[in-house]
Amino acid sequence: MSDKPHDYCGIFGIFNSDDAAINTYYGLHALQHRGQESAGIVTSWYDPAKGFPTMPTHKDFGLVLNVFNDKSLFKNKLKGTAAIGHNRYSTAGSSTNPANIQPFRAHLKGGNLALAHNGNLTNARGIRQRFIQEGVLFQSTSDTEIILHLIARSQETDPVEQIMDALRQVTGAYCLVILTDTQLIAVRDPNGFRPLALGRKGDAYVVASETCAFDIMGADYIRDVRPGEILVIDRNTVATGEPQSRFLPPQPGTGSSGCIFEYVYFSRPDSRIFGESTDKVRRRIGQFLAKEHPITSFLRTKGGKQPVVISVPDSSNTAALGYAYENQALGHDCRFEIGLIRNHYVGRTFISPGQEMRDLRVRTKFNIVRGVLEGRPVVIVDDSIVRGTTSRHLVDMIRAANPTEIHFLASSPPVVEPCHYGMDFPSPGELIANRYDRDVVRIAEALGVDSLHYLSPHGLVAAVKDANAADFNYCTACFTGDYPVPVTTGVGKEENELS
Amino acid sequence: MSDKPHDYCGIFGIFNSDDAAINTYYGLHALQHRGQESAGIVTSWYDPAKGFPTMPTHKDFGLVLNVFNDKSLFKNKLKGTAAIGHNRYSTAGSSTNPANIQPFRAHLKGGNLALAHNGNLTNARGIRQRFIQEGVLFQSTSDTEIILHLIARSQETDPVEQIMDALRQVTGAYCLVILTDTQLIAVRDPNGFRPLALGRKGDAYVVASETCAFDIMGADYIRDVRPGEILVIDRNTVATGEPQSRFLPPQPGTGSSGCIFEYVYFSRPDSRIFGESTDKVRRRIGQFLAKEHPITSFLRTKGGKQPVVISVPDSSNTAALGYAYENQALGHDCRFEIGLIRNHYVGRTFISPGQEMRDLRVRTKFNIVRGVLEGRPVVIVDDSIVRGTTSRHLVDMIRAANPTEIHFLASSPPVVEPCHYGMDFPSPGELIANRYDRDVVRIAEALGVDSLHYLSPHGLVAAVKDANAADFNYCTACFTGDYPVPVTTGVGKEENELS
Amino acid sequence: MSDKPHDYCGIFGIFNSDDAAINTYYGLHALQHRGQESAGIVTSWYDPAKGFPTMPTHKDFGLVLNVFNDKSLFKNKLKGTAAIGHNRYSTAGSSTNPANIQPFRAHLKGGNLALAHNGNLTNARGIRQRFIQEGVLFQSTSDTEIILHLIARSQETDPVEQIMDALRQVTGAYCLVILTDTQLIAVRDPNGFRPLALGRKGDAYVVASETCAFDIMGADYIRDVRPGEILVIDRNTVATGEPQSRFLPPQPGTGSSGCIFEYVYFSRPDSRIFGESTDKVRRRIGQFLAKEHPITSFLRTKGGKQPVVISVPDSSNTAALGYAYENQALGHDCRFEIGLIRNHYVGRTFISPGQEMRDLRVRTKFNIVRGVLEGRPVVIVDDSIVRGTTSRHLVDMIRAANPTEIHFLASSPPVVEPCHYGMDFPSPGELIANRYDRDVVRIAEALGVDSLHYLSPHGLVAAVKDANAADFNYCTACFTGDYPVPVTTGVGKEENELS
Amino acid sequence: MSDKPHDYCGIFGIFNSDDAAINTYYGLHALQHRGQESAGIVTSWYDPAKGFPTMPTHKDFGLVLNVFNDKSLFKNKLKGTAAIGHNRYSTAGSSTNPANIQPFRAHLKGGNLALAHNGNLTNARGIRQRFIQEGVLFQSTSDTEIILHLIARSQETDPVEQIMDALRQVTGAYCLVILTDTQLIAVRDPNGFRPLALGRKGDAYVVASETCAFDIMGADYIRDVRPGEILVIDRNTVATGEPQSRFLPPQPGTGSSGCIFEYVYFSRPDSRIFGESTDKVRRRIGQFLAKEHPITSFLRTKGGKQPVVISVPDSSNTAALGYAYENQALGHDCRFEIGLIRNHYVGRTFISPGQEMRDLRVRTKFNIVRGVLEGRPVVIVDDSIVRGTTSRHLVDMIRAANPTEIHFLASSPPVVEPCHYGMDFPSPGELIANRYDRDVVRIAEALGVDSLHYLSPHGLVAAVKDANAADFNYCTACFTGDYPVPVTTGVGKEENELS
Repeated sequence: MSDKPHDYCGIFGIFNSDDAAINTYYGLHALQHRGQESAGIVTSWYDPAKGFPTMPTHKDFGLVLNVFNDKSLFKNKLKGTAAIGHNRYSTAGSSTNPANIQPFRAHLKGGNLALAHNGNLTNARGIRQRFIQEGVLFQSTSDTEIILHLIARSQETDPVEQIMDALRQVTGAYCLVILTDTQLIAVRDPNGFRPLALGRKGDAYVVASETCAFDIMGADYIRDVRPGEILVIDRNTVATGEPQSRFLPPQPGTGSSGCIFEYVYFSRPDSRIFGESTDKVRRRIGQFLAKEHPITSFLRTKGGKQPVVISVPDSSNTAALGYAYENQALGHDCRFEIGLIRNHYVGRTFISPGQEMRDLRVRTKFNIVRGVLEGRPVVIVDDSIVRGTTSRHLVDMIRAANPTEIHFLASSPPVVEPCHYGMDFPSPGELIANRYDRDVVRIAEALGVDSLHYLSPHGLVAAVKDANAADFNYCTACFTGDYPVPVTTGVGKEENELS
Repeated sequence: MSDKPHDYCGIFGIFNSDDAAINTYYGLHALQHRGQESAGIVTSWYDPAKGFPTMPTHKDFGLVLNVFNDKSLFKNKLKGTAAIGHNRYSTAGSSTNPANIQPFRAHLKGGNLALAHNGNLTNARGIRQRFIQEGVLFQSTSDTEIILHLIARSQETDPVEQIMDALRQVTGAYCLVILTDTQLIAVRDPNGFRPLALGRKGDAYVVASETCAFDIMGADYIRDVRPGEILVIDRNTVATGEPQSRFLPPQPGTGSSGCIFEYVYFSRPDSRIFGESTDKVRRRIGQFLAKEHPITSFLRTKGGKQPVVISVPDSSNTAALGYAYENQALGHDCRFEIGLIRNHYVGRTFISPGQEMRDLRVRTKFNIVRGVLEGRPVVIVDDSIVRGTTSRHLVDMIRAANPTEIHFLASSPPVVEPCHYGMDFPSPGELIANRYDRDVVRIAEALGVDSLHYLSPHGLVAAVKDANAADFNYCTACFTGDYPVPVTTGVGKEENELS
Repeated sequence: MSDKPHDYCGIFGIFNSDDAAINTYYGLHALQHRGQESAGIVTSWYDPAKGFPTMPTHKDFGLVLNVFNDKSLFKNKLKGTAAIGHNRYSTAGSSTNPANIQPFRAHLKGGNLALAHNGNLTNARGIRQRFIQEGVLFQSTSDTEIILHLIARSQETDPVEQIMDALRQVTGAYCLVILTDTQLIAVRDPNGFRPLALGRKGDAYVVASETCAFDIMGADYIRDVRPGEILVIDRNTVATGEPQSRFLPPQPGTGSSGCIFEYVYFSRPDSRIFGESTDKVRRRIGQFLAKEHPITSFLRTKGGKQPVVISVPDSSNTAALGYAYENQALGHDCRFEIGLIRNHYVGRTFISPGQEMRDLRVRTKFNIVRGVLEGRPVVIVDDSIVRGTTSRHLVDMIRAANPTEIHFLASSPPVVEPCHYGMDFPSPGELIANRYDRDVVRIAEALGVDSLHYLSPHGLVAAVKDANAADFNYCTACFTGDYPVPVTTGVGKEENELS
Repeated sequence: MSDKPHDYCGIFGIFNSDDAAINTYYGLHALQHRGQESAGIVTSWYDPAKGFPTMPTHKDFGLVLNVFNDKSLFKNKLKGTAAIGHNRYSTAGSSTNPANIQPFRAHLKGGNLALAHNGNLTNARGIRQRFIQEGVLFQSTSDTEIILHLIARSQETDPVEQIMDALRQVTGAYCLVILTDTQLIAVRDPNGFRPLALGRKGDAYVVASETCAFDIMGADYIRDVRPGEILVIDRNTVATGEPQSRFLPPQPGTGSSGCIFEYVYFSRPDSRIFGESTDKVRRRIGQFLAKEHPITSFLRTKGGKQPVVISVPDSSNTAALGYAYENQALGHDCRFEIGLIRNHYVGRTFISPGQEMRDLRVRTKFNIVRGVLEGRPVVIVDDSIVRGTTSRHLVDMIRAANPTEIHFLASSPPVVEPCHYGMDFPSPGELIANRYDRDVVRIAEALGVDSLHYLSPHGLVAAVKDANAADFNYCTACFTGDYPVPVTTGVGKEENELS
């Protein structure tokens, strides 16, 4: 996909490791694609000098590599054998308030607690307003702080009971990693919107949004944290090899509903999420796309030069490969090629030119390989089309290489609705599909291509289920408007921020 | 004084000024001596784009000049005609938590509220522990946040009533400036521990810890905020010229108890505090010191070269002048001289040398003027002696100029007890008077001087009262252990910090 | 290639453009892969306020996007219609001296001159030592400054004559862009070691190390600057459409000798260098590799699962595609796959772990796609093998996915000799081929692969010439030790640095 | 003085000290008042790893405490037993070129050489232009680099001979500290414009612009470096206790001409320069001011309240004391008082207000002590009046305290001419004395005072010579236009800057 929806967050936790903080650093680095605006690590450490348990913390705006650029942090500050970490994407405006950087940490009556969250609550607005009436002070605009207040105010005494108490009051999408003075607790909402996996490295237990965080440190995947599961890892777990589990009740009227966009775009291809390799699923999506829209179905000139199938690197590489090879398997002549080169040095600080060179931001990210495209039919496979701006510019660049025809395929349906479970799409009116009344011919025209083809919602789900045998359902709300959990959020999120 | 106790804080507020924020900036700059670790300004601004009142905020670690080094801040961000500001000294450890930087800001059920505080609560620990039991989250380790929680949780609906409700529950020393969406509120605790003055510049009202903040902007002093007064300035005040006043009940069993150390050391000599010019009071203290310890009472060699009276610049300049001129008035030959030069470029980043040059930190701050000291009796007048380390190094430097004798006079009694009302002294065991059993002869020996003389507690109070005719009493607890308000604080202040 | 030799530099120049500086910025961004440690731009501007021509300059350590992160630079500082720019890789140690950042600028007797250089002089040491004897001061350790001194000291009066005078005295590899107050001059050494292309955008002329810098701004490629050519672009060129050319005499006993490593690794695949598309040449290299080492020649298990050909992204993508498709064309069953994922967020600030996790630096850059590799023969095609460390770690990671066999192919011969023309290889003793006596079996063993195959020097040159029909020869010294220009450089480069 | 001319520079050197670099750091800190824009240290160290002598260097823009804020610099980088250092004031414009930060360092044919300079050459322009014609490249706009080129190009082989050779070709004001691989060389121009002192601490030799740099480290003053002296300190000096001396020929037609402004304003009162204590000289200047302008000569109201004599702290403290006590000695009733308070936190980043509060910059630096000034005659003693702006604002502030009359005395004559020997005054037209035709009555009116009195040129020289018995003459050109060394400098200094 070229106009990315904003990633949400990556979370990581580790228990019983002599290198807890530095492994968290590596894990967060592997999860960097899930959030680039801030990063943080909290460890649990019994400080003998103080005589009580502490939670050393380091967090700041920036990429993981920049926030943690001082080796002495790990030696001198982030001590202890358990840690949690968080990568965050922050929406415009909130990014200037450092109070929003996670993990959050608090001292509760029972001891220290730190918490990191990936997702979005659907009843946050109501709880927040009620709390303000009661005189509760908020320091951030994050939903996460609501969970923290609920835990702090619970009448229960055991941390796990407090957490259950709190989570029974919230609805929506959330994966949590929580650190207490003696436990690492991982939680996934009853619908399982967001992925969360459990792994192990030697005697250490790890949890992470994606398994690529396990690979970087050589940890093994055990299983996913289950929808609604509150998984508690403590000294007893280390001794017995068995984490304890509690389960939250299902959100009324719904079953599982994993975010299918994770498979379409968000997750790294080398990760296993919802129990299955993203690469495998994404390739199957490409194959189903080939079945729905074989190359022969739209190619104008038959018998000309061999068509080339290209991806928009790197996000649609796998789907494009799946599409090309499936076409070949179906007997349709074509070849996968690298027709676009991605610049590795793209950053946020790019200075935009004036009106005359509006496509330059895209040109700083991508360039064409003219020899691959010239004089041939070109089939672009992208993972999704959101705003369409980048796609249009890419098509223009490709057109300049004089291909005989250009076709654009999306390995997902048109994005037409907002996500209320943590994904930050542009407003509905900015979505290209909506701007052209969801009329594929007009969208194709707007993109400047000879034809445009989307994978159908049914085809997408079928592909995912074909690749992933698990008994698990998916949320496709951004394509279909079919929201598994009702939403009561609204404006006014920023109205109580203590600073 | 050479080993300063840490200053506490400076606070400032302004209402009905087109230049509210920049005047606050100037005011904080004038109050810089009261806190050098962080600075912040909050304004009240009805944002027409948003359609509701906001409180733009800018605050950071650093000196005022560094925190506010971007002119556009005042134009583009800190809009509005009312503002409050705060300079803060933060004790070791807490200085790394940006959540402790004041003013604090919160959205309460009735609207926005911002608050800046100078002082120390004596029942903070109990309230904090109770709140934690109830599930209240703290983001800072500051007493100030306790006041904010108390206000937020008040059942009252009017902000002034909420504030009164909150303050009835706390004891100790506090001056507050509070901004609501329509008011500037200034509060001084019933004992009046810390100074707070009311002023006016044209149609604008100002409040500040010291009147030097009025002078920098050309505002006129009206009167002090009275002990226990809750002074409310709003549009009505502007129209009528009359602030409204409410009063808190006195803290049981006590009357007024202004911090006498303000006159001894803290306040700038060009400020008027507790209703009287610091310079005048400090000079009177020097005169009373001359009466208690005239130069003839300790000078060994009579009839030798004229003795020189020197100050430790700049804090004891006025007292030294008062001492010298009173001696002259009493017919004792002596001369005020500048025998120590203070380096203007001293900063926090100084790199200390090894063991061999332990006095070098003092040498980077001060140097002697040899010609002034050589071959004469030297009388050093300092405002106070706390840890004694700097004093000892200064004496060594002066000794190197070969004076005939060296006498050390403190324009205050020995510091022997901790302050519970906001002043950050070293622990009692580190105080030089305690290390030598409050034995003046032994302390003199430790300092390396021929004789040492302190102003008596009675003399200090008498001098202050002689200069300041107001019906007002003073706290001398750090000299006498006589605490006007009982104390229940203790350890554990940092135990609930949300971050 | 996984252990990259250090890139040298990218240079860019533009004449007669209203957006000279910002286009240079875009050009340098496209050339970022040629040098990541510093960037600089110099423009030529007649300052009416001063009444004489100036050369505004901005340069610093960092990536182009970071050095130029302030839009006002282009509006207010880097004015003028002509500009040159430079990206630099600086070898360890010199990177702390800002005096080494190019372009260099000087005021000569005839006016201003700025110069940027890509390459390495072979007689620098002798000239430098002679100059030091004569009392010439050097401010940098760069060869480039030698050229500047030679120009400044020339007895000629015309800048082009001064430049010719200077360059007749140097030998080695150099591409230069030079700005005078009225001209843009582009120079390529008589052997043509480094690429340099001429382009045009409307009435503006551009020169750049690679044509990808033209694509980013929509400029058209005209032709290469020829070996030995001194190409002068001025107002006359704009009027007539004809740059003037002068030619340097050939370096004795040699013809053309373009750096073949540009095609193997350095240049971007979307660039045209030495007159031909890098992608086309690199693909042909992959094809020739398939002819020399077809997959059937080393595959142990015949008739098993289909072998996968993978690249080390992104540098060997094209060669791997060429290899895979040529094998298919030859009837050998295999499939190109993406088996390694490259992390986009790798940076210089990575904190290395201890001994136990030595491969972690590689893991932060790459991860495997297990499903692609498991249970199959895996053929890795990399562009070159230098130190071998990264290759070894990649093989270990791939091995963990349980492929049936692993074969490693390099699309170039073993690197065994140093480069004296600008490429910064490790010392010969660190090269893996030398560490194992250039014995392919032992190197394969060291890498942990089942077999290892290098493209032969003859095969490499044949592939390049097959793809690029131009009458042009190549330097293969790093593979063969056959140096086209003799070398007199040695140690001691840093011995005269004015700072 | 309130509108300071810009300080020039402070230089320091040390030989044979185990703590060479850190002592240089302390010395530069003591000399901070002589230059606040950049600081640098170069040491001489035989690096056993390299096998040859090196000159580690650290320098940057900023105050000494900020440039050297990393203790490891001294341990790990600035090794060796000899060092030189420099504080620099840089004029507007040049301050953005880091190449101008001293000390300069070069590798000459005989070895390394580093050089730091305080002063200004009067024939720099001619030499620079000749050099440019010869093809010499300049990297800075500093006169100091001219000296370095002259040394480098000398045909002599011995460093001391090379230095003599170079300095015979320059005229003007210069003090130099030079480090070679085996020597510390201190040079003072034949006129002795700038001060330079020799000291000793144990076996280490030190040289510094002012002796306050000796005091900070406990070194003893030996003597001044003599006008024209080239003083060489090496291992032989350490062994014998005798530095070697060479002497430059006098500049034609002139004798000694020490800058009298050093005594008036620049030097710290605790320094001994030109062989005598600045405090003593400055006090004598105050006494001579009292003789020329006794308080009775201008006081309007006789028999009223006692007049107070105040200084503008801290620069005129000593002169004001001298003035007040001499008046008392003459029987004129008056009292020295502290009527102005100086803010310690003033910095460069102050944000100026708009038109309406133009005096605010002064108010951020100074405040009045109302009680001292009210209802009395006030006599302000300042060291000098340059632009007059600050003086005017101070008078306004004092006037607001309602003194009965205000008189302004300058302890130096009106500044009316430029300095060509290193002091950076405003242009002649900006000098208040010139703006009012050197008419004291009009200047007094412009300052808003009841009367204004300058010390006469003759009185100033007489005071200095009365205090300093040495056979030494002074430059008074800025007061009299009597230039001891002719000047050929002019515009165009920046025309050859290599960067």
